[in-house]
Amino acid sequence: MRRKTLAYVVYPGISLLELVANRTLLGGMMAHGTLLKFQAGYDVVVGGGAETLPALANADLIEYVRRAGQHAEWVAATSTGSLLLAAAGLLEGRLATTHWAYTDRLAASGARPQPYRPAGWVKDGKFTTSAGVSGAIDMALALGAQLTNQTLAKFGQLMIEYDPHPPFGLLDWSSFDEMQTALAPLLSQHLTTQEPAHLRYTLR
Amino acid sequence: MRRKTLAYVVYPGISLLELVANRTLLGGMMAHGTLLKFQAGYDVVVGGGAETLPALANADLIEYVRRAGQHAEWVAATSTGSLLLAAAGLLEGRLATTHWAYTDRLAASGARPQPYRPAGWVKDGKFTTSAGVSGAIDMALALGAQLTNQTLAKFGQLMIEYDPHPPFGLLDWSSFDEMQTALAPLLSQHLTTQEPAHLRYTLR
Repeated sequence: MRRKTLAYVVYPGISLLELVANRTLLGGMMAHGTLLKFQAGYDVVVGGGAETLPALANADLIEYVRRAGQHAEWVAATSTGSLLLAAAGLLEGRLATTHWAYTDRLAASGARPQPYRPAGWVKDGKFTTSAGVSGAIDMALALGAQLTNQTLAKFGQLMIEYDPHPPFGLLDWSSFDEMQTALAPLLSQHLTTQEPAHLRYTLR
Repeated sequence: MRRKTLAYVVYPGISLLELVANRTLLGGMMAHGTLLKFQAGYDVVVGGGAETLPALANADLIEYVRRAGQHAEWVAATSTGSLLLAAAGLLEGRLATTHWAYTDRLAASGARPQPYRPAGWVKDGKFTTSAGVSGAIDMALALGAQLTNQTLAKFGQLMIEYDPHPPFGLLDWSSFDEMQTALAPLLSQHLTTQEPAHLRYTLR
């Protein structure tokens, strides 16, 4: 039996939540999936988070992502992990997504940001990118189904009991601009404490 | 300004996913919330997971949970964390929930398991328990809104971009028995590898 290797790129500030969500689902499906037929090879998952922007200035990390991404059978990124893929030149002209606060950065780095809906993730060739925590989970389910099968993906969903009923509903992207305006004071406070000054994001 | 302290009970086998989901949301809201008026005091969050059953035999841990839970202003548990609360005698006669595979155990320990729907969490007095990863997130949003306000909870939801669109839909509890039957071989394999033999769960 040939096994598949998942490489998780880890660096300071990464969002544990999205990384663990991806690892829990895909790792679980892969563990069962080794009982199925797999192509040998390896794949790369690049995490992100609100505190990962300094990683964009890490030439060694970018070079690693570039080489690993070029040779991997598929590459997935959660949240701002797609900014690392883009910085490595891997998303040139490709549809991609990221956390909503970083869409402008993604566009500036050569990718074509996917409009928000209908899902929190988008696949373009061997590159799949996701936005936020639910996007990380939904992407892992969809990718896992492609790599194994839908029964295993549903099993994974049942095992982690992913049956979302957000108490205040889904995010309302149609009122996103108003929402962002209303939340601007909180958001500004958050970004000021989270991001290093030399890379600070400017609120539109 | 008086601060609130969140105590996270950590022990071997705990589900990082649910713990991190809770910590990311509640911790974030609390950080902003310290700007608001808070009651001083502390609260306890007890995590769970598929590999935590041996903790039920840890008398020191159970005793800690009992004392901490008695004196805390509120107590929350994710997944099988509610089994620890129950073992500590804190859920006697209370409505509670847990991961679906452990509902029978919860009932046997003196709590009144909440029927699955309409949400993955239930509050009874100062005790709130949740089932699975989405329940952990949904509970954190609902609890956070009670402890701060709904605007901060929605801000937390926006910041982690929790906008779930499960690619294969929600779990269908109306066909749960069929689903469990269909998945029995996979589930049996999973539980066999995850649970210690002396506490093994018997599939109905």
